[in-house]
Amino acid sequence: MQELYIQAEAFLSSMKQFDGIHYDASHWENRLLEIKKEIAQSGTYTHSPQELEFGAKLAWRNSNRCIGRHFWRQLDVFDCRQIDDYSAITNALERHVSSAFNKGAIKSTVSIFAPRHTTQAKTPDTVTILNHQLIRYGGFKQKDGSIIGDPHSLRFTEACLKNGWKPNEQSDFTPLPWILKINGSYQPVYDVFHQKPELLNEVLIEHPENKAFKDLGLKWYTTPILSDMALVIGGIIYPCAPFNGWYMGTEIGARNLADEARYNTLPKIAQLFGYDQKTDRSLWRDRAIIELNRAVLYSFDRDAVKIGDHHALSRQFEKFCKNEVDAKRTITGDWTWLIPPISASQTPTFSQEFDPTVTQHTNFFYQKSELNPSKNATGKCPYHLA
Amino acid sequence: MQELYIQAEAFLSSMKQFDGIHYDASHWENRLLEIKKEIAQSGTYTHSPQELEFGAKLAWRNSNRCIGRHFWRQLDVFDCRQIDDYSAITNALERHVSSAFNKGAIKSTVSIFAPRHTTQAKTPDTVTILNHQLIRYGGFKQKDGSIIGDPHSLRFTEACLKNGWKPNEQSDFTPLPWILKINGSYQPVYDVFHQKPELLNEVLIEHPENKAFKDLGLKWYTTPILSDMALVIGGIIYPCAPFNGWYMGTEIGARNLADEARYNTLPKIAQLFGYDQKTDRSLWRDRAIIELNRAVLYSFDRDAVKIGDHHALSRQFEKFCKNEVDAKRTITGDWTWLIPPISASQTPTFSQEFDPTVTQHTNFFYQKSELNPSKNATGKCPYHLA
Repeated sequence: MQELYIQAEAFLSSMKQFDGIHYDASHWENRLLEIKKEIAQSGTYTHSPQELEFGAKLAWRNSNRCIGRHFWRQLDVFDCRQIDDYSAITNALERHVSSAFNKGAIKSTVSIFAPRHTTQAKTPDTVTILNHQLIRYGGFKQKDGSIIGDPHSLRFTEACLKNGWKPNEQSDFTPLPWILKINGSYQPVYDVFHQKPELLNEVLIEHPENKAFKDLGLKWYTTPILSDMALVIGGIIYPCAPFNGWYMGTEIGARNLADEARYNTLPKIAQLFGYDQKTDRSLWRDRAIIELNRAVLYSFDRDAVKIGDHHALSRQFEKFCKNEVDAKRTITGDWTWLIPPISASQTPTFSQEFDPTVTQHTNFFYQKSELNPSKNATGKCPYHLA
Repeated sequence: MQELYIQAEAFLSSMKQFDGIHYDASHWENRLLEIKKEIAQSGTYTHSPQELEFGAKLAWRNSNRCIGRHFWRQLDVFDCRQIDDYSAITNALERHVSSAFNKGAIKSTVSIFAPRHTTQAKTPDTVTILNHQLIRYGGFKQKDGSIIGDPHSLRFTEACLKNGWKPNEQSDFTPLPWILKINGSYQPVYDVFHQKPELLNEVLIEHPENKAFKDLGLKWYTTPILSDMALVIGGIIYPCAPFNGWYMGTEIGARNLADEARYNTLPKIAQLFGYDQKTDRSLWRDRAIIELNRAVLYSFDRDAVKIGDHHALSRQFEKFCKNEVDAKRTITGDWTWLIPPISASQTPTFSQEFDPTVTQHTNFFYQKSELNPSKNATGKCPYHLA
């Protein structure tokens, strides 16, 4: 409880320092006294709507691995702490998907459900989403060992099928249903994008010059809504707090569709462009990955769906760093995530160093997952919930 | 002195564990006793030729930032500890340049000059090379503020000119002379590649398909011989120990010739290929850097000069890691240097984690430099000599 108060204090101190909020000194003193009392009485404390909103923004600002933090003040925060029945929860999640997409002008959004119970450690969380992201494609293991769809989703897809999901088809791009738990009880698998296809917005990937590219049949969803991380604000854990920004092109073009262990499309793309795949030294992988990334940016632009390129986002991140320094705040960061996966040395981030300290009182954290054990921390990782 | 003995012991323990060397147990006991005695009498100890050779190889194996460590056992070690007069030193360095080049079949080589005096800390080092690399191009600041040549060499070039260097020409690729100190005294600037042009081996950069590429007039030297780092073996500091491997293509194609703060050739290359430079989203930088890297590999191959590509070198590094694990040794590494500066996510290294511990008893270290203050450590850096 002492620990919780210290974290609350650290959070309120950050909130006080932030020049966008003006209260007089007595406000902060009174609020801290109130929190101290509440913790003493109940073992926890409750954020005001203003604290919840600022806390979520601060957690974003503190996210060492995020290159998009320049816009941390512009976050739509949905307060879902009181929502605890099934249809209200799915409604709130659907609202998130649609409001964040915003007809292509993607808005950074977080929906914050009930906090973890601190007094009785055994009480299950009010709301749990088992999905990695609210929109994600299934991965289906075939009898011959091959995989249709996204290999990253294999385990979760299996769990969905075991729990009664009957997908219309098993394609490379079959959107996964949602699996929720309420007060520790599994709810029926909800095939949301089958029932409400209008919620699923995708971009078909074409290449600006190579007309045959679209025959590869590649596409990707518009909005990456991470749903398996915990949001921590001033020591209070929100285990269900799906959030999204907009994509950086390389996340799709240099990882999701390109990694050998994911969609592994580079050999096909290289073939399409006639690159020599007999030797690495032709740099066919390197050429193919650039063409795929051009196609991703071109296609999102064509559909007027917001997406950043790694050059522009790196420059924005430089501005973020400058702003933080100007405000006399320390910039913490994880270089290994802040450099882009292609052309890293061509971004200013490459030659910078960052303080790797992970602010613990207010941040987003990985947490244990029943359906994706790879998410569980091995040893002490500062990015995992302790 | 106790500290030195501990480091000697750690080094000899690594040497003993290495299965390529077979002595009976008494050898190691006797040798340690001998070293203890020598340190007690003289404050230092002297490596046997076998220890010097193994120590240099071990320092390479321990170099966290080097992707080429798979070949750590194959290192030509020149014992130059007794060489202390000017012409013998320059002869030894010239031999290094020519023997390492080996008519294109580059051999990893180190030339080890006298160790630092430990007893009298004020005694200057016997041999000091001020150059960053034995072969490097000058950087000449023009009156209008522009730079001809390599901006990285500006300060060193100024020092050369101030000390009487009269270059034949100030071109983009004018090889720098050597600046040496013997027993703390500056020696006359030695314009080695002007006097012995046969020592300078360079590769003219052509593109496999784009015939106009060669009109850019790009070239690079064949052998990267780092000459400003200190070699430490079992706690003994060798402040002058130039060493080389062979190039990985990206060092030239994605850094030296590509960085904005270096030769900055990408805009010219993009123009040559007709890429749209009006917007980052055309990924013109990304396309140009790949074509430059293709040209570098193609041109070195054309001249039969050994060079690695980042895909092959990453796979070799995986083998190194496997060997080390099989030999029950910990792999230490610096991820930020081990991933290539382009297409990083397409190499297996990208998804690995490394123990960042820097072995202190035997390794290569950055050290203070009179002519390149940027090399001086700020704060505590494990890669700098304490």
